[in-house]
Amino acid sequence: MRVLLIHSDYLKYKTKNKTKIAEEIDDSKQEGAFEDSLVVFTAVEKEDEKNEEKVVKNFIEEVKSVHSDIKSETIVLYPYAHLSSSLSSPQIAIKILVNAEKALKEEGFNVYRVPFGWYKSFELSCKGHPLSELSRNISGNESEKSENDDE
Amino acid sequence: MRVLLIHSDYLKYKTKNKTKIAEEIDDSKQEGAFEDSLVVFTAVEKEDEKNEEKVVKNFIEEVKSVHSDIKSETIVLYPYAHLSSSLSSPQIAIKILVNAEKALKEEGFNVYRVPFGWYKSFELSCKGHPLSELSRNISGNESEKSENDDE
Ligand SMILES: [Mg+2]
Repeated sequence: MRVLLIHSDYLKYKTKNKTKIAEEIDDSKQEGAFEDSLVVFTAVEKEDEKNEEKVVKNFIEEVKSVHSDIKSETIVLYPYAHLSSSLSSPQIAIKILVNAEKALKEEGFNVYRVPFGWYKSFELSCKGHPLSELSRNISGNESEKSENDDE
Repeated sequence: MRVLLIHSDYLKYKTKNKTKIAEEIDDSKQEGAFEDSLVVFTAVEKEDEKNEEKVVKNFIEEVKSVHSDIKSETIVLYPYAHLSSSLSSPQIAIKILVNAEKALKEEGFNVYRVPFGWYKSFELSCKGHPLSELSRNISGNESEKSENDDE
């Protein structure tokens, strides 16, 4: 799983056309707007299919760890295929994102999941402090986590 | 080289702190604002060190190809380490970006290169049409190019 975490003053999105792997959504999810958010752009990868539960666990641990540093009001999970060239099946990707959303909600976080498989317009800001842009490789393996936080 | 291409209504950036690999910049480059742009987020990778010239050539061919579809006013080259976990040396990365900028300018494109190695705040929009978000793996190899344009 490849993840890009952005601390944002604002994120807005609007769904446009469906791709062929679009999830069905309520009208309420056709657009969204968020202030002070940790936006978690996420590409679930083929390798993650081997160990979904561990991947979800390691993913939410990482999100919580970054969130504890930046303390944003909201966490936004944003599916972003463009971060990887070795994607999982759409079914597994949605399942992992849904389960991560659920787990974070159960722990009391204010979390929102952006629809999967839609073309979307968006507007985003990045605050620019050293922790406002981070990337991670997350696997189902306990110890494997790579960081790369310099430009 | 890992590349993310975004067709934007606006991009604004401001340099904040230097990282230890920051390039020296003129005051004029401390911030920038662009309308209708193809923003090319770019991570130069270790593998690209083997064949810098071919990488520059393949990179600008790809940028020109996407630009010919979307026909934005401006092309903005934006260094973005977070797209890869196997980065080249900063020296090679800057060299490749500078040479790509030069080559595109010589061909008459309106191109701008965002400073390398600085923490930056930014604001970005993505138009949301199917060609407004594309990612590419670009190598020094003639035939190797991977695309991944579905969500
Ligand atoms: Mg796309």
